[in-house]
Amino acid sequence: MPQSPPTTPAKRADAERNREKILSAARAAFAAPDADASMAEISRQAGVGMATLYRNFASRRELLEALYTDEVDALVDAAAAHEDAPAGDALFAWLQRFFTYFSSKRHVASELLEDSGDSNPVFGQNRARVLAAGQPLLAAAQDAGEIRGDLTLEQILDLVGAIAKLPGEASYVEPILMAALDGLRAS
Amino acid sequence: MPQSPPTTPAKRADAERNREKILSAARAAFAAPDADASMAEISRQAGVGMATLYRNFASRRELLEALYTDEVDALVDAAAAHEDAPAGDALFAWLQRFFTYFSSKRHVASELLEDSGDSNPVFGQNRARVLAAGQPLLAAAQDAGEIRGDLTLEQILDLVGAIAKLPGEASYVEPILMAALDGLRAS
Repeated sequence: MPQSPPTTPAKRADAERNREKILSAARAAFAAPDADASMAEISRQAGVGMATLYRNFASRRELLEALYTDEVDALVDAAAAHEDAPAGDALFAWLQRFFTYFSSKRHVASELLEDSGDSNPVFGQNRARVLAAGQPLLAAAQDAGEIRGDLTLEQILDLVGAIAKLPGEASYVEPILMAALDGLRAS
Repeated sequence: MPQSPPTTPAKRADAERNREKILSAARAAFAAPDADASMAEISRQAGVGMATLYRNFASRRELLEALYTDEVDALVDAAAAHEDAPAGDALFAWLQRFFTYFSSKRHVASELLEDSGDSNPVFGQNRARVLAAGQPLLAAAQDAGEIRGDLTLEQILDLVGAIAKLPGEASYVEPILMAALDGLRAS
């Protein structure tokens, strides 16, 4: 990564802040489907120069991959955060988080797919991380008899992902998600 | 339609048989994703000459539209066939039929979409017919208190269609469908 190493704590903090400002501007740009998500516009919105932008992310693709991985980090952290809730509730809260993640990452993921194809290792690696993070939640909810035992986490995430891909407003799609989640309860 | 009107009952029956043979060969060709579904191969499989094929269907697109409409006819008929079953069972049986229809029509529909775009009226018309056919089944099942009342038929069909689009073997996808259908039951 062509990022020159900052030498003092103040410079390191500055560099970290710039990186965060860029990621946050890029996240906002990709959340609005019609927004201009060019590198120039992202640098403008982040309030950093193009040189700083490219020092942090050598290419648009590198920025996209960082955005994508950041979302997965948040999702993986969320799995740990719910550990103290009752097993079924913890799983449902995390699945709803997955739904939001899946809905919001779509523009980033589809541009990455176009640019680098299915074979970009970022997809497989992150999928494996998501499955590993959710697996203990599902196992606990199944052990507690709260969630049906005949589906794997992969099947459940495919179901939630398929619903997240449906076109339509949240008021149309969310009741569909609620019904599907109810279907996961052990009867 | 450039089909010369048969003059005697025997000729009419012949013509009808040829049309059925062509549709059946085309259906089989499209059911196998890697099969050769060219007009030449369909005429060979149907055992009719190219002239007869083109007399029935002036273009490949006309054949695709006929295939598509035929599938919808079968689905609409199936809604009526279940009318005597208990309301919840009737709806579920029909939704499973819809799932099969949706899985099998995909190659036909995607080729039609490529060829004629979203705006081909065959899609809107047939969607309206499917909704009209299923609506009484849903209303009866909701009135009987067997199916949750907070989803419309459009939402339910979008859910089933999204599952039908998932990649994977039937043994992977069908348990997902079963869970989603369970989620439709009134709790």
